[in-house]
Amino acid sequence: MHPFTHRRAESAAALGETGLIAAIRRWLGTASPRTPYGIGDDCAVLPASHGAQLLTVDSVIFGVHFDEAVTPRAAGAKLFKRNLSDIAAMGGAPRAAVVALALDPRVKLRWLEEFYRGLAAMSRRHRTPVVGGDVARLDGGIVAALTLVGEAGARRVVTRVGARAGDWIFVTGRLGGSRASGHHWKFTPRLAEGAWLAHRPEVRAMMDVSDGLAKDLPALTPPGAEAALDAAALPGRRGCDLNAILGDGEDYELLFAVAGRAEPEEFMRAWRRAFPRTRLSRIGRFVKLGRRPEGTLGLTGHRGYEHLRGGNGRKEAQKAQKRGSRGRS
Amino acid sequence: MHPFTHRRAESAAALGETGLIAAIRRWLGTASPRTPYGIGDDCAVLPASHGAQLLTVDSVIFGVHFDEAVTPRAAGAKLFKRNLSDIAAMGGAPRAAVVALALDPRVKLRWLEEFYRGLAAMSRRHRTPVVGGDVARLDGGIVAALTLVGEAGARRVVTRVGARAGDWIFVTGRLGGSRASGHHWKFTPRLAEGAWLAHRPEVRAMMDVSDGLAKDLPALTPPGAEAALDAAALPGRRGCDLNAILGDGEDYELLFAVAGRAEPEEFMRAWRRAFPRTRLSRIGRFVKLGRRPEGTLGLTGHRGYEHLRGGNGRKEAQKAQKRGSRGRS
Repeated sequence: MHPFTHRRAESAAALGETGLIAAIRRWLGTASPRTPYGIGDDCAVLPASHGAQLLTVDSVIFGVHFDEAVTPRAAGAKLFKRNLSDIAAMGGAPRAAVVALALDPRVKLRWLEEFYRGLAAMSRRHRTPVVGGDVARLDGGIVAALTLVGEAGARRVVTRVGARAGDWIFVTGRLGGSRASGHHWKFTPRLAEGAWLAHRPEVRAMMDVSDGLAKDLPALTPPGAEAALDAAALPGRRGCDLNAILGDGEDYELLFAVAGRAEPEEFMRAWRRAFPRTRLSRIGRFVKLGRRPEGTLGLTGHRGYEHLRGGNGRKEAQKAQKRGSRGRS
Repeated sequence: MHPFTHRRAESAAALGETGLIAAIRRWLGTASPRTPYGIGDDCAVLPASHGAQLLTVDSVIFGVHFDEAVTPRAAGAKLFKRNLSDIAAMGGAPRAAVVALALDPRVKLRWLEEFYRGLAAMSRRHRTPVVGGDVARLDGGIVAALTLVGEAGARRVVTRVGARAGDWIFVTGRLGGSRASGHHWKFTPRLAEGAWLAHRPEVRAMMDVSDGLAKDLPALTPPGAEAALDAAALPGRRGCDLNAILGDGEDYELLFAVAGRAEPEEFMRAWRRAFPRTRLSRIGRFVKLGRRPEGTLGLTGHRGYEHLRGGNGRKEAQKAQKRGSRGRS
């Protein structure tokens, strides 16, 4: 559905801010708790937290993260799931969300209704109420930012820091081709998997892959180490070449390090008992810098998605290779 | 400063997302705590809360909430303060912020630096770290949404609900003319005042005035009651007529109800001891619907700022008056 209309009666402008907020509460339905636990006061009120808390924010923008090819309901769901994936990556559980919407007054009410119904569906599925928001005018565009408050699921939160040389590298699901396959809005955030991993002491560090393995894996790599990947083990989506697997982005899968002293086959069996339907791949190991074994794949020369430059850096990587500046790869 | 440039080397595009996030951390300085308590992981980690928590989100948009006449530093500070004002209105204390920025790649780096330094200054002044964020591309615009997590300052949070017929109505500071006077970005959020009010049992309900008294006061008005205002007591800013006082918006003052059985002069004396420099006005009383005394001012026919329609509804209110539909006013 195209989001804009020239018929005022069918647009957000017809309701004005007050009417639109009332409509949003209606569209959210049971996903919107009563004041002061939800929309309607200066702030939403949440009960005190039990343990450490998590906070994350992510946006979707018309023309960047979704377009007319994605239904408004899927766009709303995607916004919620992008943030859930960040909570999953720390091994946490989501608790409450707020949504800031900036929109052109000519946005169709039907489009908005479907967008908020997409948010509401995810809110109910993950028992995470939408407790507040903001609506403001933006000529010519739609920007929606969702902030999620979560809580640690285990005694610890799993951060990106903690991997050591010798650790195994694992990734869930498949990589690459997210746009073409529709995975970028169809994906399921790995909340159950993330919570399970946070309870396994051999899991030392974790993150979600959202900008492509080539851009994200360096954030998990310990100082003085590098990744030695097994190219054959990379779980590429059908039709994806190595560049797509490493650089496409929007995978929303969990990437984590397992202590080198752990028995990877044993870990894999425990995983399959817990998640028989979620693919898990051991894709390599961290090794000391400069000690990458022959036949393994390094990451220099591959890049992930660069949001403000556009593209996934492949052209720049190719240029760099042509100049002979391939570095360690 | 105009925010856009055609010189790529001076624009956000020159850094790309990764470089820009590194620059943002630098500009935030001590306002940005270390990972995992700040920017750099999938979520920020906050310690467990002691009491009830508050959550609010508000945005600033170039061309709507600020323009070239406002320095980028003031625009950043305004974004932070709009949200602080919401925390103040519940009697809470701010705890942590996240910022979602959507921007055209042609935005000047110098503009962005000043904007984040404005955020950082408010972050330090109110001991509220910026713990995370998101940067995304938006062609032709700048939208920044800030989400604030707060904590109840007293045993209770003060909501908009709780006023009764007979209660006194108070407001801090001055009203109207916020745009022309620069108050809309110069204001100081009433955090200390809000926290003090939450400790006074005679304060029954509170909110901040951000869309104009005429639009906001109805939210504080109990069912079956209406406001009877003393027009002479309204603390208008210099040069403001009644329409401006009631409808201009962006006042960011505290509006609250004090139990009718309380002695208003005594309350006023306690206030002056606590806040000798913050003006407080008793502007009227809630009365039973239809019992508004002769000579007092009602609110029907006046409206506040309507964000998606633009303007403060004065024209529509005037039209309504011409049609003779002045209702109870």
